[in-house]
Amino acid sequence: MTLYMIGLGLYDEKDITVKGLETVKKCDYVYLEHYTSVLGVKVGKLEHFYRKKIIIADRDLVEKQADEIVLKAKTKNVAFLVVGDVFSATTHTDLVIRAKEEDVKVEVINNTSVMTAVGITGLELYKFGKTTSITFPESGFNPTTPYEVISKNKLHGLHTLCLLDIKMAESSKEDLMKGVKNPLPPKFMTVSEGINYLLEIENDKKQNVFTENTIIVGCARLGAPDQKIVSGTVKELLSIDFGKPLHCLIVTGNLHFIEEQALEYYRKR
Amino acid sequence: MTLYMIGLGLYDEKDITVKGLETVKKCDYVYLEHYTSVLGVKVGKLEHFYRKKIIIADRDLVEKQADEIVLKAKTKNVAFLVVGDVFSATTHTDLVIRAKEEDVKVEVINNTSVMTAVGITGLELYKFGKTTSITFPESGFNPTTPYEVISKNKLHGLHTLCLLDIKMAESSKEDLMKGVKNPLPPKFMTVSEGINYLLEIENDKKQNVFTENTIIVGCARLGAPDQKIVSGTVKELLSIDFGKPLHCLIVTGNLHFIEEQALEYYRKR
Repeated sequence: MTLYMIGLGLYDEKDITVKGLETVKKCDYVYLEHYTSVLGVKVGKLEHFYRKKIIIADRDLVEKQADEIVLKAKTKNVAFLVVGDVFSATTHTDLVIRAKEEDVKVEVINNTSVMTAVGITGLELYKFGKTTSITFPESGFNPTTPYEVISKNKLHGLHTLCLLDIKMAESSKEDLMKGVKNPLPPKFMTVSEGINYLLEIENDKKQNVFTENTIIVGCARLGAPDQKIVSGTVKELLSIDFGKPLHCLIVTGNLHFIEEQALEYYRKR
Repeated sequence: MTLYMIGLGLYDEKDITVKGLETVKKCDYVYLEHYTSVLGVKVGKLEHFYRKKIIIADRDLVEKQADEIVLKAKTKNVAFLVVGDVFSATTHTDLVIRAKEEDVKVEVINNTSVMTAVGITGLELYKFGKTTSITFPESGFNPTTPYEVISKNKLHGLHTLCLLDIKMAESSKEDLMKGVKNPLPPKFMTVSEGINYLLEIENDKKQNVFTENTIIVGCARLGAPDQKIVSGTVKELLSIDFGKPLHCLIVTGNLHFIEEQALEYYRKR
């Protein structure tokens, strides 16, 4: 049988493709990857729409029970649902490799990802450099990677998409080390938190990469009916409440006049 | 009423999202952007599946009659279908800006794009730098931009996605200058043509950016049931027939071990 890797898109149960929906309906097991991203609707809505029971796959399950998923796909049709497009996180490539090692057929049904959905801002996709992630600092460890990525992209006039951290109901490192499962409430980094993170590094490095006057675009809930997109300077956007997750942040490089014109429509007023 | 910008995904009529399909069905006019990319199936298949007449929008129509499309959307529901995700080409941002200037409501329904579908190769999306395009040389003019983009990306260890040119039934420059519409047959650049283009520049510049030993990945018909993905050196891939369009080419940067492991499955043998 087959392991179907199916992208769900960004917002609700109807963002799946027609092909994806037909495929889920014929699967015996349906897993939902539930730790690198989340939809804007509850899992029950998907279950109702597919008329299928969904097995929530947290990081622990996918990393430890990948073999079980692959094993099931030897005799049954298994759907592995991923928010956004299928290959955003390394783990899924890993799952596919394991399936191939076991001679299990893998089929991919793609969907949109935040990486191309940001095109709605009017910034041209082929003018983006490497994507970066800003993660919640852990016990005082603030990696400066995002700042360096922005700096290199800017050097070549390129925009930078900064994905903002998601912590799904995971146990703390301390609990995990004790072997205790005690999931903390989920946490989603906001645009302002992302901005403050970068400003702190700027304050330290002073390389003029991310200052109060840098032109940025904040996005929240891309693909949802209540999506919010605001462009402006760092100073202007710092105080804006973007509301519910997920948020992301774009640091602009050189702007073409059509891009400037498009960003005008999203200006903070 | 509303101008709906709807992504179609990469292969056939069922790659549209459920939301996209429901929306097309309620539209009074359905345009299909038909010059920056093409699906793997004929337009008639879409018409049959949607039960709607489709207006083919070539470059000429979109650029000259954008106002007409926007005007229609003032009183009717208009769908503007785009292969892949919605905002891959500047023209569509332009269309949205015109709609906003006329106070026409715009809604976007996203879909996958080759830019994230390449994740199936096992190369990590956040390790890609700027995307580039290799275009058919026109009257001896061979821009070296793709070579320079690859060079800069490599400098930072990043992969480069090279989109390969598509010329849809367009009139020649000579005919256009004479005001004559005389569309030439469509042309799609192949992986080997892309490789040869880059080798010629390497031969001229000799900067060791794209040599016979560079590790690349050739992809054809991503998202289609007969998609073909082969990894190997430039020398190995040069003679491979990737078959029908569309093709694209990835020049790898530094490879992580999971990426190497994934590419092994696509090795030329």
